[in-house]
Amino acid sequence: MKFTKMHGLGNDYVYVNCFEEDVIDPSSMAIAVSDRNFGIGSDGLILICPSKLADVRMRMFNADGSESQMCGNGIRCVAKYVFDNKIAEPGSSFSVPGQPTLPHSLTVETGNGILTLGIMPGEDGLAEQICVNMGQPILEASEIPTTFHCNPCVGEAIEAGGETFEVTCVSMGNPHAVIFSENLDEIDLEKIGPALENHPAFPERINVHFVKAESPEEFSMITWERGSGITLACGTGACACGVAASLNGKCNRAVLAHLPGGDLMLNWCEDDNCVYMTGPATTVYCGELC
Amino acid sequence: MKFTKMHGLGNDYVYVNCFEEDVIDPSSMAIAVSDRNFGIGSDGLILICPSKLADVRMRMFNADGSESQMCGNGIRCVAKYVFDNKIAEPGSSFSVPGQPTLPHSLTVETGNGILTLGIMPGEDGLAEQICVNMGQPILEASEIPTTFHCNPCVGEAIEAGGETFEVTCVSMGNPHAVIFSENLDEIDLEKIGPALENHPAFPERINVHFVKAESPEEFSMITWERGSGITLACGTGACACGVAASLNGKCNRAVLAHLPGGDLMLNWCEDDNCVYMTGPATTVYCGELC
Repeated sequence: MKFTKMHGLGNDYVYVNCFEEDVIDPSSMAIAVSDRNFGIGSDGLILICPSKLADVRMRMFNADGSESQMCGNGIRCVAKYVFDNKIAEPGSSFSVPGQPTLPHSLTVETGNGILTLGIMPGEDGLAEQICVNMGQPILEASEIPTTFHCNPCVGEAIEAGGETFEVTCVSMGNPHAVIFSENLDEIDLEKIGPALENHPAFPERINVHFVKAESPEEFSMITWERGSGITLACGTGACACGVAASLNGKCNRAVLAHLPGGDLMLNWCEDDNCVYMTGPATTVYCGELC
Repeated sequence: MKFTKMHGLGNDYVYVNCFEEDVIDPSSMAIAVSDRNFGIGSDGLILICPSKLADVRMRMFNADGSESQMCGNGIRCVAKYVFDNKIAEPGSSFSVPGQPTLPHSLTVETGNGILTLGIMPGEDGLAEQICVNMGQPILEASEIPTTFHCNPCVGEAIEAGGETFEVTCVSMGNPHAVIFSENLDEIDLEKIGPALENHPAFPERINVHFVKAESPEEFSMITWERGSGITLACGTGACACGVAASLNGKCNRAVLAHLPGGDLMLNWCEDDNCVYMTGPATTVYCGELC
């Protein structure tokens, strides 16, 4: 089986072009390839498949074999793969109010519906920056879900691990709790992360982010991902932090986010209430299993 | 750069054929490729180079960029790579008293001198089992080194982490402390490992192994590696445990070792006092950096 190893801000997957390869049992394959010592080593497996509804369809399997609907870092890599390898004819330009128009577009069928992405090539003609419409944030407490009664849920007090935090809760299809802090180095994320993730206020558990607003134009963040622990980059989480920073009056709706794995540009667009995320995708190597 | 990902019992390296590729700065390259999220992901980098003294020369760089002399799991993979890819003409058969003769041999120049290896092909004609002469054990306390006064050092009492252990100390070029136990599941290796590794009795620190003798023909072992922590397989450590099991009258000189990553056959040969280690090597995939 031929494959390509790609990452978006260090969130790395094994990508297989299913226009050419058959993967009979993707769940088992995901478990096998994700193991670094005996397999390839990755956060999971992403299949790039033909689609009747879009240019391509992505299917995403985690390292434990479970299937996920969508991944913000993964879909940027799918777009780069399709563009760089000319799997589909790119569409016309991609515009978002208040940010530069990207010259190419692409549609990807996901478990969350069909998403349209914008592509900005680099000097080598390959995709360099990819913009994804991550959809509208969900701010109503019961839909996030949390047991709070609020819409939006901004600065709600919560106790965990012997401390009290003010959390802002946002769903981007999955739930996020955002806490603002002046010093991210002092956060004991290994301790506070699981305490908040499993707090009874969050019936489906929650992703936890600590955010430092550096200026109205940028913020830094660290993340404890539900079920995964500390990660380099959470795409939906960055979007949720962008929304939370705006709701709290700490940053503009268009803002640069510094994640441990790299930077994302976020834009919570007033016109359509959608969050547009722009960031890089990187091809590391091509491989073939023996 | 083309490379091959191989492992010996889960001890995985990126292998580069330097008969065809130039690696200008292997230390920096080792750091870059070992990173799974942004690079390839491995325990390090092994270069297979031309040699004036042997069939090939291996150079081994750890994930932190430091160079090591030799690696028992790595050299088996080097032999498999050279044999499978016909880099060198294999030599005549390889004999060790008391075990089956292997049909092919190969010489490898390492930081520890030139080693001769035996190769047993599988049904596909590719190398399946590789036997390495790991040299003579060092049993004199000051040469291991430990602060004990003994030769051999068998069942020496030592206190660490609030417990007293009886350790047998053996060097296979690097120092090992072996402790026999009836129940490996009960060992808190994360706690005891570093306590023994850094004990003042071991001036160059030490690798720590807990061993359960299952019968005179086989034992199970778990390992805390000096500087690395818990690992799937330590080749020199398995040899040291084989010697220790023999010195303690627990196992025969020829014995099957069960490591977390798989099995090794060990033979502490009476004729030449050398330890012969036989085990598998696995090619997972071929790759090319973009």
